[in-house]
Amino acid sequence: MRGAAPVNAPGARRRVAVLGATGAVGQAFVRLLAGHPWFELAELAASGRSAGRAYLEATRWIGDAPPAEVAGMTVLPADPEAVSADILFSALDASVAGEIEIAFASAGRMVLSNARNHRLDDDVPLVIPEVNPDHLALLDVQRERRGWPAGGGIVTNANCAAIVAVMALAPLHQRFGLRQLFIATMQAVSGAGYPGVASLDILGNVIPFIDGEEPKIERETAKLLGTLDGGRVVPAPIGISVHANRVPVEHGHTICISVGLERRASAADALDALREWRGAEAARGLPSAPSLPLRVSDEPDRPQPRRDVWSEGGMQVVIGRVRNDPVLDLRLVAMGHNVVRGAAGASVLNAELLMAHHAQRLARP
Amino acid sequence: MRGAAPVNAPGARRRVAVLGATGAVGQAFVRLLAGHPWFELAELAASGRSAGRAYLEATRWIGDAPPAEVAGMTVLPADPEAVSADILFSALDASVAGEIEIAFASAGRMVLSNARNHRLDDDVPLVIPEVNPDHLALLDVQRERRGWPAGGGIVTNANCAAIVAVMALAPLHQRFGLRQLFIATMQAVSGAGYPGVASLDILGNVIPFIDGEEPKIERETAKLLGTLDGGRVVPAPIGISVHANRVPVEHGHTICISVGLERRASAADALDALREWRGAEAARGLPSAPSLPLRVSDEPDRPQPRRDVWSEGGMQVVIGRVRNDPVLDLRLVAMGHNVVRGAAGASVLNAELLMAHHAQRLARP
Amino acid sequence: MRGAAPVNAPGARRRVAVLGATGAVGQAFVRLLAGHPWFELAELAASGRSAGRAYLEATRWIGDAPPAEVAGMTVLPADPEAVSADILFSALDASVAGEIEIAFASAGRMVLSNARNHRLDDDVPLVIPEVNPDHLALLDVQRERRGWPAGGGIVTNANCAAIVAVMALAPLHQRFGLRQLFIATMQAVSGAGYPGVASLDILGNVIPFIDGEEPKIERETAKLLGTLDGGRVVPAPIGISVHANRVPVEHGHTICISVGLERRASAADALDALREWRGAEAARGLPSAPSLPLRVSDEPDRPQPRRDVWSEGGMQVVIGRVRNDPVLDLRLVAMGHNVVRGAAGASVLNAELLMAHHAQRLARP
Amino acid sequence: MRGAAPVNAPGARRRVAVLGATGAVGQAFVRLLAGHPWFELAELAASGRSAGRAYLEATRWIGDAPPAEVAGMTVLPADPEAVSADILFSALDASVAGEIEIAFASAGRMVLSNARNHRLDDDVPLVIPEVNPDHLALLDVQRERRGWPAGGGIVTNANCAAIVAVMALAPLHQRFGLRQLFIATMQAVSGAGYPGVASLDILGNVIPFIDGEEPKIERETAKLLGTLDGGRVVPAPIGISVHANRVPVEHGHTICISVGLERRASAADALDALREWRGAEAARGLPSAPSLPLRVSDEPDRPQPRRDVWSEGGMQVVIGRVRNDPVLDLRLVAMGHNVVRGAAGASVLNAELLMAHHAQRLARP
Repeated sequence: MRGAAPVNAPGARRRVAVLGATGAVGQAFVRLLAGHPWFELAELAASGRSAGRAYLEATRWIGDAPPAEVAGMTVLPADPEAVSADILFSALDASVAGEIEIAFASAGRMVLSNARNHRLDDDVPLVIPEVNPDHLALLDVQRERRGWPAGGGIVTNANCAAIVAVMALAPLHQRFGLRQLFIATMQAVSGAGYPGVASLDILGNVIPFIDGEEPKIERETAKLLGTLDGGRVVPAPIGISVHANRVPVEHGHTICISVGLERRASAADALDALREWRGAEAARGLPSAPSLPLRVSDEPDRPQPRRDVWSEGGMQVVIGRVRNDPVLDLRLVAMGHNVVRGAAGASVLNAELLMAHHAQRLARP
Repeated sequence: MRGAAPVNAPGARRRVAVLGATGAVGQAFVRLLAGHPWFELAELAASGRSAGRAYLEATRWIGDAPPAEVAGMTVLPADPEAVSADILFSALDASVAGEIEIAFASAGRMVLSNARNHRLDDDVPLVIPEVNPDHLALLDVQRERRGWPAGGGIVTNANCAAIVAVMALAPLHQRFGLRQLFIATMQAVSGAGYPGVASLDILGNVIPFIDGEEPKIERETAKLLGTLDGGRVVPAPIGISVHANRVPVEHGHTICISVGLERRASAADALDALREWRGAEAARGLPSAPSLPLRVSDEPDRPQPRRDVWSEGGMQVVIGRVRNDPVLDLRLVAMGHNVVRGAAGASVLNAELLMAHHAQRLARP
Repeated sequence: MRGAAPVNAPGARRRVAVLGATGAVGQAFVRLLAGHPWFELAELAASGRSAGRAYLEATRWIGDAPPAEVAGMTVLPADPEAVSADILFSALDASVAGEIEIAFASAGRMVLSNARNHRLDDDVPLVIPEVNPDHLALLDVQRERRGWPAGGGIVTNANCAAIVAVMALAPLHQRFGLRQLFIATMQAVSGAGYPGVASLDILGNVIPFIDGEEPKIERETAKLLGTLDGGRVVPAPIGISVHANRVPVEHGHTICISVGLERRASAADALDALREWRGAEAARGLPSAPSLPLRVSDEPDRPQPRRDVWSEGGMQVVIGRVRNDPVLDLRLVAMGHNVVRGAAGASVLNAELLMAHHAQRLARP
Repeated sequence: MRGAAPVNAPGARRRVAVLGATGAVGQAFVRLLAGHPWFELAELAASGRSAGRAYLEATRWIGDAPPAEVAGMTVLPADPEAVSADILFSALDASVAGEIEIAFASAGRMVLSNARNHRLDDDVPLVIPEVNPDHLALLDVQRERRGWPAGGGIVTNANCAAIVAVMALAPLHQRFGLRQLFIATMQAVSGAGYPGVASLDILGNVIPFIDGEEPKIERETAKLLGTLDGGRVVPAPIGISVHANRVPVEHGHTICISVGLERRASAADALDALREWRGAEAARGLPSAPSLPLRVSDEPDRPQPRRDVWSEGGMQVVIGRVRNDPVLDLRLVAMGHNVVRGAAGASVLNAELLMAHHAQRLARP
């Protein structure tokens, strides 16, 4: 699953820690960082009652089996005094993430966060490496404005559904300009964490509501596709209407999109744009980057979450049913792994991007 | 579940038959007609190999238990020579429905059809009693143009998803005028009949494709909301974009809709229109009509198929999440029972409408 | 669904309360008691933080819609000082049920409990009305031994899987004597309450473990089928081996049983015994009693939870696949509604049994 | 996933074909044989209408994506004249497998069959390499008795549930002797092929019946654990009672077993036996053999199909909940991949066993 044009590995592996390591996304970080070529999973931390306990006792491990390296590890408090790594992956709950992440950043550490708290802060980059790696320049604004020491910063990844949608939309925006979007999501239960959605609520059912999700997708999409201008991101001026739904699927958000463009394009034009897209140069060859950011399926009934979600280890978004739209220009379906591409893998890729191209913004190893 | 303002029952119960009685929709007709106050389920017919067999042996009954009255019945050939009833409910497969329905109609029988074959014929009424009962006037055009004897005719109900969507949209169209619609459906497996969708395809999965469904919903919605003018229906001039999806739900199509209106209206205005709507006068008090055609839920996360699908015996459409739309005017979610309101119950209600208000268009009893 | 030989209704409806009214089983009590012919649902109580709040605000209602009568009700503390009804249905969590139930009983109130705490107490009747109504005589032992005032007592219903199994086994035990049982359950998620089983744990999965369930089924089965002797119940001397599993089903526990008998019997003999069984005389005609306690299906592939669980309102157990066993005597499958027959409905039926035949053991109305 | 003590690879890869290549098990053979170190997937054949068509057009591919090597292949008739490979994997339907397999064997070809037709023939080996590789000696009896030329023969794998159960039971049988078994299966839908189980039958449901399955499991278990004696297999004299159920799981049969032993053993003894078991010497190090045939889980709630089914590529059976039994000696749960370990992978492993240790029984390459 690893990238085509390998980036030179930095020298020694860099020590990293996971904050909020016991939850569902925390576990995904642990799985993706175990054996990572550039990072050494050195510390696990959590807020609240888990600190001080053995990691595997404090954790209700929900996947097949935890990696060997965490077997003997103890959960540390999510506190810059207790955690020594200076690259941190945050899977903290939004109720605590805001302050804890700032505590780490103001102590000169770099936080790669999956939490929603700072995503829309003016000076916090919200990044998908293939789409808007240039937004990382906000790190300088951020450090200066907040008075953080060198090496301190917060980089966020977007909401899981926004990431999948934007991966599919970026090539169209770059080539034809997006004007209007109608988005209907069918989101997997793992997007709600663990225990998350009760089985009595979702077995054989659809829940046409996810609290706070629709505005998140609308705003984060506009920021991700926005333009860096004078130390801030100008959101892309796209009209966006979202319907967010929960469906009884384990992993994989499936997203139907009707697209209105600035410059007319047919389904064939769109297919060309999607097939040819390689994503930003800076993201190519990173250890967690897929060989191609998108796979376009020719099957009439794909993508499907159960069948396509693990495409390139879950880091590739799969597109299908690209067709003309009777009202706007195009319709299509995008599907991606909400926990990998849409959460933990997104932050790991962001960290790789920093390591490969922004080493000067990190603390000295 | 039965209607508020009871229509006077016609005298004796009228003998009726089901064509295509062994399939999933045929079974739903059987269930709804057993013990019906106006109809006597007198004959069961099917095309192909089932004819001549005992009904319950020829049928893989998929519900809880078949009604007692069909226990001793034998399947007849789907042929006007073999079937004597002059009101027929057709659950025939589209591969054979076209010709068989015409054979019955040209023999002076009235066919209430769930098949798609004649829905878009210029002279065939496509009817939801609460929405467009006046379209039944096409029956005269039809009989004259085709040279059918008195009592002969075909009345169709729409596609199961189109019915649910149009029930929700009719009050808005009547009050504000519809201009543009974005529709994303999440359809239950029972919409595909039996055996229909293989469990290996849909367990824990979403299939973002239903063959032929999207154009059906687009065209039938426009016809249902169209205007009768000079012996034909002028489709409503609405831009409609549909995404049709299959989800692992037994019964109940859940439909997300973004609505653009001719005359501006807020979510509060729309809620008023939906709550006040009683449907066409002609449909009120029919035996299978719900007390109100729509139920508007105040819960933030409803309607849900598993919890709401049997509302008023499955004949009521449930609406929720009526809210403003960032791009057009409104967003909402509609959900209804695809086999009852969207198929067999739809044709039974059409037959009741004929009995109550168009007796002269039926054969003499 | 109501019983064949109607028991004379007591005069006025008796005021009752539900303890633990906000949880899943509490909600089922509310649904079953709303409009009950003998009981008036007068008070709702809960332990902990819900007390003082409006019932429908304190409750995450999980069914279709709550009954009208609870709309204005406020949650009371689960405390005999605060609750005045002298018949109480307890859906309390096992962590608190033990003491609260005793507090009510020692205040002269009759508690019909679904909690496991006192089920195996020597002097507490564990009752299925059709099976062992005579065990209610323990109430006198209980009151005397514990020094409770007249009207005070605790009657329990069994574990939901034990009830379903014992309903199927009682006729065989009565006619042939049970010697050995192998029981494998496939239990619905509603058996774990709400939120209960996380969807991430059970979607497309089987969990071959339910904490504490296997010994409960073994012991409660032996007590239910036991013999009242000298003021105590001698458990039936049956060897019982249980495997308890959780499956992705909403309602309905499906139970496979291999049966070894004291007196040899064929599958045909067993079918006769099951078909002829009407249950104990005392239970017949009670308002919540099904017309027959068991329905024996002839279909090769029934019972099935989704199709059979609502048989007679969920109070009837459905049996199928009665066949010879290559090792012991018989094999069969039993299925029943775990929340209705196996929990709330079980206690309601016990209360009806008390009202009809043990009025003297209740407080004076 | 591959074996610990590597067997020396035979020289060149051997050309093989799949019979019945278009169905669900046929596709699994294709997936497992693509890139196999010892076999070259040279031909694909099917009975009936698929012959002559491009494989990927004739096939409704149900997994993620078909392997590249089959892209250009055409389906051949399942006929020894048309297929030239002399090692054949049969995924043929039982309605045709019987005669076609004999046609190939009598033409001097070796058939590794997943079909049930010949499994219980006296002279046909029914083999799990780790359990009873010595039964392959029946091939000589078979060839002689049937007058087949050198290289001709039929080797079968067992029913998917029988394989999983016997893998778990073999170490106990070898050490303590099995006397009596109560087996309740919860089988995945993929065991019924494609389209197989209709979603309307199994969503949110359990079907406590699989046609013909219970006697198959009983007889095949006895044969697999039987003793080769004078040119035939004497079935193990074990009393076996089976309950077979279908559950809404994609892959993985979960099996609850109560075990009566000849020689008393505790759960601890059984755990030792299971943990120490490496399977027959002959099977070790084969390319498709797991590193250990069994994995014994210490978790209280494992194995679970969704979480454990891909253990060692689906070739390892996972055991859990080994505990004492109140009636017999032991209880445990076994789970394995029904399509890999229980079907296609089983025959591939049998073929590897033949290649490694019985080359003389195959046709000259």
